[in-house]
Amino acid sequence: MYPNFKFEVTYNDPDSSARTGLLHTPHGVVETPNFIFCATKASIKGVMPQDMLEANTQIILSNTYHLMLQPGSEVVKKLGGLHKMMGWNGPMFTDSGGYQIFSLGHGSVASEIKGKRNGNRPKTLLKITEEGARFKSYVDGSYHMLTPEKSIQIQRDLGADLIVVLDECTPFHVDKAYTAKSMRMSHRWALRSLEEFKRTDDHSQALYGIIQGGVYTDLRKESSDFVNNHDFFAHAIGGSLGASKDQMHEIVGTAMSMLSKDRPVHLLGIGGISDIFNGAEYGIDTFDCVHPTRLARHGGALVPAELKDRQGDESTTEHLNIRNQKYKMDDRPIDDTCECKVCLNFSRGYIHHLFRAQEMLGMQLLTIHNVFFMNRLLKAVRKAIKSGTLRVERKKWTRL
Amino acid sequence: MYPNFKFEVTYNDPDSSARTGLLHTPHGVVETPNFIFCATKASIKGVMPQDMLEANTQIILSNTYHLMLQPGSEVVKKLGGLHKMMGWNGPMFTDSGGYQIFSLGHGSVASEIKGKRNGNRPKTLLKITEEGARFKSYVDGSYHMLTPEKSIQIQRDLGADLIVVLDECTPFHVDKAYTAKSMRMSHRWALRSLEEFKRTDDHSQALYGIIQGGVYTDLRKESSDFVNNHDFFAHAIGGSLGASKDQMHEIVGTAMSMLSKDRPVHLLGIGGISDIFNGAEYGIDTFDCVHPTRLARHGGALVPAELKDRQGDESTTEHLNIRNQKYKMDDRPIDDTCECKVCLNFSRGYIHHLFRAQEMLGMQLLTIHNVFFMNRLLKAVRKAIKSGTLRVERKKWTRL
Repeated sequence: MYPNFKFEVTYNDPDSSARTGLLHTPHGVVETPNFIFCATKASIKGVMPQDMLEANTQIILSNTYHLMLQPGSEVVKKLGGLHKMMGWNGPMFTDSGGYQIFSLGHGSVASEIKGKRNGNRPKTLLKITEEGARFKSYVDGSYHMLTPEKSIQIQRDLGADLIVVLDECTPFHVDKAYTAKSMRMSHRWALRSLEEFKRTDDHSQALYGIIQGGVYTDLRKESSDFVNNHDFFAHAIGGSLGASKDQMHEIVGTAMSMLSKDRPVHLLGIGGISDIFNGAEYGIDTFDCVHPTRLARHGGALVPAELKDRQGDESTTEHLNIRNQKYKMDDRPIDDTCECKVCLNFSRGYIHHLFRAQEMLGMQLLTIHNVFFMNRLLKAVRKAIKSGTLRVERKKWTRL
Repeated sequence: MYPNFKFEVTYNDPDSSARTGLLHTPHGVVETPNFIFCATKASIKGVMPQDMLEANTQIILSNTYHLMLQPGSEVVKKLGGLHKMMGWNGPMFTDSGGYQIFSLGHGSVASEIKGKRNGNRPKTLLKITEEGARFKSYVDGSYHMLTPEKSIQIQRDLGADLIVVLDECTPFHVDKAYTAKSMRMSHRWALRSLEEFKRTDDHSQALYGIIQGGVYTDLRKESSDFVNNHDFFAHAIGGSLGASKDQMHEIVGTAMSMLSKDRPVHLLGIGGISDIFNGAEYGIDTFDCVHPTRLARHGGALVPAELKDRQGDESTTEHLNIRNQKYKMDDRPIDDTCECKVCLNFSRGYIHHLFRAQEMLGMQLLTIHNVFFMNRLLKAVRKAIKSGTLRVERKKWTRL
């Protein structure tokens, strides 16, 4: 069913579920585990595609929700699809639009959760029916209906290599009855997505199914069985991953043990350094998160724990806050072991100045550094998996 | 006096004052006429030095006023000086700080002019004495005193190749008595600047004198004689250039006829396409202006008049306003005759989307295009001067 796509597992760690692989797409190969950077509105904020490539990026994603509202998927199609429009010729992923409808739709995740628990979700903002999800545009307030079929059609217009079924994204502590009901509707939506996908298939895209079930093991099992038994190219772990990091690990571990081993698995929205080591150990193949690029725009430069150890920096975060006054006169690069074009050319003091002076170049430089950092990190993860040293490697990168 | 600097005139147009030349600096050669881009706070907003180079940029400038306040010239010095700090290894220029004190110091040029005419310039904002100019920091409200000696010392810390004497920048319609008085003080400041320059000279920098005199021919003559007779490497035309474009041409023409022909001449703050053709015809060697880069950040893409003619665009501006709805579906590049990396890779529709979606990449892309455009324009100007076709060439570039 997916003649132009292939997932090869190249190594399985005998002592854990960690693995390395190659994800083949019509726009190139992604070495896994890997990290997918967010070009939400068809742009990595502040970075040109050429610079993403030079920073060793293999794959990026865009968000269906944002693009269907602005400029509209028909405009993206007219401009040649995402790859051509953005000038990015590598592999691309789009999500279904569901996540943003269920989170941004309410202004914040917090209010979403509250709304859900109280059962008084404002009807002007969102209505979920068997047909699909009705929501209001964050751009102009217009009303829209996103159905499983519509999501696939939009993702066809956008033209990413890897696309995703529409699901309802449940908040983290809805009760089991709601979770089960929602999961089963998401399964029905997944079947409709798959049907629409098959109806319009031209072998240029591959479809991800999503495993739901929240924090409930039996529901996760039901959902894993569901996706395993249908013609998805790959799987994504969605739905609530619990209220704590520990619970997240448990849920991801449980889900991974049940999912078919011959399909790649994407973990949605996770991007801390420690989270990536945990995920890799469970066998996650791809991650995505706005964290590295958003952190950069707020002055955070990702650095390995080793660097902090060596420079006597006792902070527990996984980054330097370059806005800190202590960097004002610092003529060292962010990371003297990093070979990104930022670390090779600019000092902490200069980047500190750019942030203080509100020069956009500061955000650009830290974004390029963080992108390079993530790609370097994932390369180290892949290497460590193959040499059975993932837990040793982890200590070099994070104190968390 | 300037062993590491040289200005060679390579061609004089027999029919006008236009000329081409080579301005040699310790960081490389500038072909003249040329355009100097503004990296006000030690950053071309949104563009990395490497991309400036790839867009054929030969020279950039930074502003002493901004940098003395933030991060402070001692910080720039500690970080290796402007070239090293910014990662720009080509020729650089800094101004004296005077212009911004006398314009920004009052919030706007309009209020400055008003204040001057009424003689009630708010004393908390600025006091000009024989010693220098006292002003308040726009960053933190602290008080500062800029003297001719201080301006040179700061420019030494910053380390640009080409530096400028401090002058009082008079608004465009102060009376002749004030203009004469101010000009003579500026001359005394210039002598103090020159003395401080000589005291601290290590042959790494060259000093520009400024010709003042406002709109008054006899004062311009007095000022031209002054700068011609002192050891400046080059000259800059400062002070009021009048209230209209016609008056500006007259003043620039008059000044140029009086200035020594063996020194390069910089025209401060001028950057429209038609202005550059006019200036080149009078023999101006370098221009600077925030216009091309600021215009880009507001969605303006510089294009040749020829392109507008060919595409039936009847607007009289020298640019396209890419935010205009008509570009939403336009899959053409900004300018199909332009070989910048933006025109080779991105469509008007995509850049339109980036501006509408408030993606900073839009500003970055248009800035790179406009920089490339200006460098292409100045190259065409140099070529046209050498072939005696400047007026024909002009019609290809501007309708103004």
